[in-house]
Amino acid sequence: FWWLKAMIVGVVQKIIKLGQQDPRRVFHSFKVAIALTLVSLTYYITPLYDRFESAGMWAVLTVVVVFEYTVGATLGKGLNRGIATLLAGALAVGAHHLASLCGEKGKPIILGLSTFLAAATSTFSRFFPRIKQRYDYGAMIFILTFSLVSVSGYREDKIIEIAYERLTTIITAGVACVILSIFIFPVWAGEDLHNMVAHNLEMIASFLEGFGGEYFRSPEEGDNQVISEGKKPFLKEYRSVLNSKATEQSLANFASWEPGHGCFKFRHPWKQYLQIGTLNRQCAYLVEALNCCINSEIQVPYEFREKIHQTCTNMSIESGNALKELALAIKEMRQPCLADPPVESAKAAASDLKTILETAIIANSDLLTIMPAATVASLLVEIVHCTEKIAESV
Amino acid sequence: FWWLKAMIVGVVQKIIKLGQQDPRRVFHSFKVAIALTLVSLTYYITPLYDRFESAGMWAVLTVVVVFEYTVGATLGKGLNRGIATLLAGALAVGAHHLASLCGEKGKPIILGLSTFLAAATSTFSRFFPRIKQRYDYGAMIFILTFSLVSVSGYREDKIIEIAYERLTTIITAGVACVILSIFIFPVWAGEDLHNMVAHNLEMIASFLEGFGGEYFRSPEEGDNQVISEGKKPFLKEYRSVLNSKATEQSLANFASWEPGHGCFKFRHPWKQYLQIGTLNRQCAYLVEALNCCINSEIQVPYEFREKIHQTCTNMSIESGNALKELALAIKEMRQPCLADPPVESAKAAASDLKTILETAIIANSDLLTIMPAATVASLLVEIVHCTEKIAESV
Repeated sequence: FWWLKAMIVGVVQKIIKLGQQDPRRVFHSFKVAIALTLVSLTYYITPLYDRFESAGMWAVLTVVVVFEYTVGATLGKGLNRGIATLLAGALAVGAHHLASLCGEKGKPIILGLSTFLAAATSTFSRFFPRIKQRYDYGAMIFILTFSLVSVSGYREDKIIEIAYERLTTIITAGVACVILSIFIFPVWAGEDLHNMVAHNLEMIASFLEGFGGEYFRSPEEGDNQVISEGKKPFLKEYRSVLNSKATEQSLANFASWEPGHGCFKFRHPWKQYLQIGTLNRQCAYLVEALNCCINSEIQVPYEFREKIHQTCTNMSIESGNALKELALAIKEMRQPCLADPPVESAKAAASDLKTILETAIIANSDLLTIMPAATVASLLVEIVHCTEKIAESV
Repeated sequence: FWWLKAMIVGVVQKIIKLGQQDPRRVFHSFKVAIALTLVSLTYYITPLYDRFESAGMWAVLTVVVVFEYTVGATLGKGLNRGIATLLAGALAVGAHHLASLCGEKGKPIILGLSTFLAAATSTFSRFFPRIKQRYDYGAMIFILTFSLVSVSGYREDKIIEIAYERLTTIITAGVACVILSIFIFPVWAGEDLHNMVAHNLEMIASFLEGFGGEYFRSPEEGDNQVISEGKKPFLKEYRSVLNSKATEQSLANFASWEPGHGCFKFRHPWKQYLQIGTLNRQCAYLVEALNCCINSEIQVPYEFREKIHQTCTNMSIESGNALKELALAIKEMRQPCLADPPVESAKAAASDLKTILETAIIANSDLLTIMPAATVASLLVEIVHCTEKIAESV
């Protein structure tokens, strides 16, 4: 059984690694387990809820479905669930009442028709982007509750009582989840978003800081050797920024459900983080193009490179500095006052470069590779400037 | 009530627009509604299932939760649900049996402990990227079923019978959903992925084809006027490619659940679409950098631009042609044999451009803007070549 042992050891190592990366995940798992065990045992031991046969089931279902990793997601799902259940329950009771008026024969027809209509409209409404973004789960629960109440209502006449007890169970379980997720090791989506945006800025910054040294290596250091990306993590790290849009958007969405916490007030301007994120991604696209130049096969003659070496490196380091300062400002939530000097000097370097290029005698050099670096750097300066404006409003 | 009327008209217009964009959405809504109504009414009218009080509820729940937009998603969720229910049910019955051996006092402790363990491990397992991608839903259902069976088992002794009837209900409802989604107006995730990848290639292609004309407009046509992007959709359309990664990945994930359909066999190489998509996104990043050049404030003197006009336009149009041909080849699922000539001529244009640049006397022109276009275009050629290789294996 040596292979079984090896497999188990491998899995355990993976688990430990995953736990170390973010210990909050372990806490989250325990939180869910505690909530579930508490709810189960409450309904299991106390004879308090004896008369509601299925109430325990609803509580368990709510806990499993509502308890999400971040506070915002839990709150959003809980609210969605509560409101949708209330609404659908009320409508279904109304439909039931209407159906009862139509006699024994008309009843199934009316009920079927109303289920059909409710299901079709709410399924279709889930295709609207705005509803999909925030109320997708609510729409699903709406259909569920509506058809459940319609179906169950036939056998039992005490439909309102059932609806009431289910609602209280669901709300109790939902509130328990929310309280647990807020007060015991909370994971705030807003905080995650905040850190993620700052971290993304930093990654771009560290690429820019390293870029000058990487691109303008002198031939003695081994000009044509393949750049070992493995040894220089900053050359690859920025890639995660390129595809960060979906994560940022869902975090901002969750964050908008959260109450005030820590240094964030309720109705913190989360959308500005998205704006900064978008600008930063634009920066990342340009960086990606820059990276292509590093790896490009066409190499520029050493003499010409030497001419623009200093200014280009300056530009890239200064924009990197500016971005780092911005990231720090975001982290500490203050005005990014120290970002202006690097931005200014990056701009100065850019105009220096322009004059160098204009006066240079470059008849016999291959221009194909050297220019994009300059252009992209100057574009970067523009973007840094733009980011700065937004960061000011934090 | 004129504002109410205006609002209703607005909503109706939106609905019609959404329906026209993709009529399959309307069909989907009706499919869900039909499935739900059928299931409700079956359990509602027939006395067949009279002895299972809550069986109807489980059927409704399964339909609402499992029925997704694409066939792949429905199948994936259905299988996840079925297998997770089976597994969790078996384990929970085992735990119950174990608990019964421990006497009346030990029973709640054992049950609580097992619930806690099961919930903690399966919640934690959802953080593994591979499980999250494919079995996230299954893990959730596992916790749900496990704790439900644990809770309910205390009151009723016929635990195995309950587990059995629930399982049959869920499987019946799940199979009904899968059949309905496969045989009535099916929406195949694989087909969507296929079309999306081809369409993305086309968007990049149409940008490239239009780029030459846009960038090298002669001064008479109004050189400095702001480019009206609204009138030229191809200048903006490609942006959706930049953030297409998440959609492509989820579609490929769903597609891997689907059986063979149409011209796609089972185990169609969906991952290759992802590779093509990644390369295409890389292309899009470069295009984004190109687009910055169009909108750049620094404008190149007319005389110099005129010199490289022809070759640059050629390069961009030819790479556009090559991409279009590749997109067509993907659509028709054949070898992209016609893509070679444009790639070759794009390469030829690139080397022409190189010689032009090397011999040009450009002492007094501002090089800052013209070069990136050339470089990026030559990079594009490289990428087109790369894409071609992959497209060959389709």
